[in-house]
Amino acid sequence: MSDPRPIGVFDSGVGGLTVLAEVRDRLPFEHIVYFGDTARVPYGVRDLDEVREFAFEIIEYLTGLDVKLVVIACNTATAAALEAAQAAFDVPIIGVIEPGARAAVLETRLRSVGVLATEGTVNSHAYRRAVHYLDAGIRVYEQAAPALVPLIERGIVDGPELERAVRWYLHPLQRQGVDAVILGCTHYPLISATINRVLGPSVRLISSAGQTALEVRRVLSRRGYLRHVPKMGDEGRTTFICSGDPRQFATLGSMFLGEEIEVVAPAAAL
Amino acid sequence: MSDPRPIGVFDSGVGGLTVLAEVRDRLPFEHIVYFGDTARVPYGVRDLDEVREFAFEIIEYLTGLDVKLVVIACNTATAAALEAAQAAFDVPIIGVIEPGARAAVLETRLRSVGVLATEGTVNSHAYRRAVHYLDAGIRVYEQAAPALVPLIERGIVDGPELERAVRWYLHPLQRQGVDAVILGCTHYPLISATINRVLGPSVRLISSAGQTALEVRRVLSRRGYLRHVPKMGDEGRTTFICSGDPRQFATLGSMFLGEEIEVVAPAAAL
Repeated sequence: MSDPRPIGVFDSGVGGLTVLAEVRDRLPFEHIVYFGDTARVPYGVRDLDEVREFAFEIIEYLTGLDVKLVVIACNTATAAALEAAQAAFDVPIIGVIEPGARAAVLETRLRSVGVLATEGTVNSHAYRRAVHYLDAGIRVYEQAAPALVPLIERGIVDGPELERAVRWYLHPLQRQGVDAVILGCTHYPLISATINRVLGPSVRLISSAGQTALEVRRVLSRRGYLRHVPKMGDEGRTTFICSGDPRQFATLGSMFLGEEIEVVAPAAAL
Repeated sequence: MSDPRPIGVFDSGVGGLTVLAEVRDRLPFEHIVYFGDTARVPYGVRDLDEVREFAFEIIEYLTGLDVKLVVIACNTATAAALEAAQAAFDVPIIGVIEPGARAAVLETRLRSVGVLATEGTVNSHAYRRAVHYLDAGIRVYEQAAPALVPLIERGIVDGPELERAVRWYLHPLQRQGVDAVILGCTHYPLISATINRVLGPSVRLISSAGQTALEVRRVLSRRGYLRHVPKMGDEGRTTFICSGDPRQFATLGSMFLGEEIEVVAPAAAL
């Protein structure tokens, strides 16, 4: 049995493209629709009810494209909307928080985990709750890193300025003696080389994006929802949709994805 | 690096031996200490505070034997004590509920899951909570099956009497159209052939015992806690300890494990 329906992935902007990249790496034969809500980015500064409303609108839109699974590739939207959306929609929905938290629980020997994230995600304590749900005895240290997203969006993904900022934010986590750090923001995979170098080999770096992609594969494969192809080379198509200016999304998005992308408006994709 | 410390597994009685069997199947080189609290069996009729106290005593005892990980191989004790024990002890502790719930979430296409368990476990709604934590939109139907444990402990693990009881309890779950059923009691793997036959091929049967063993392997392997052996054949030893009558435990336990076992008293093992 082969299921050719696409996977839906959405985010407030381009950050979720790191999740998309991991999903494509692991599931190259799947068709994917990516939706970036760039007309209303960023979600982090909005109140949770509003974010939940936006998420519901987008999931509604994606189900109109007959997706077989939805990935909320955004920490803020996962914290705000995942549970309510799972209860409201028939399509399976996966967020970015639980998979990363779960990997950290499996990896930490010292039972001491750090989380690097935006202020909104840190204040929601969603990662702490997710880790404690699996092991109530693990110490969780959450560190907000407000300067990192602006740096990354300016294209500064290595060099001394970035490294200084990364050292500054990681220092408190290192002082607590964590042996696993969760990248709790979809932008951070772009700077994981620097983060890894600063942390050193004794600390495991856990990418929520990568772990979420593994979870997507697990669910599709266990439920028999994978797309099987008759011959090699018949790779999945990715369609990029955004609610704001397509050219702006394409420019920034191409940096996140490491390849040229062509973007369409929501109306054109329906 | 090889970690020769044993894994600790405990239960109120012999039920947890099905979990032990799965752990041994998947980790044949690990030493294991199994503790059956047969002097105080069953836990299901006691109040949760008391069960928590017993669990803490046993974990204390097992840490005295320098275990590297503890498995609470008992649904009642997991519901009563897992979270508090994880917070109180340094040793990693795994329960039997979350792994089974997680497998069901991965498997169900219809997002409709049944749980077959004892009355105590059903009344705690621990499986429903664990499933909903992962996907709040999955329908969970919990069915208490009070007659099954007594039948199994009398050695009735197949035949018409068992099949009648199994049909009786599964009927409400089948009517709800579940496509995955969690065996939410450690005794039930002994009758999984009958349960499988009654459910038919379109319903996936999920053994909490098997899923828990997979979780034990994941944690040990990711944290680098496995015991590596220099040569084949150097299999792990299992030590059986019980708080009640060793002969009684050995007789019933051998049926659960499918092999002769030799049991010792707690004092002799320290």
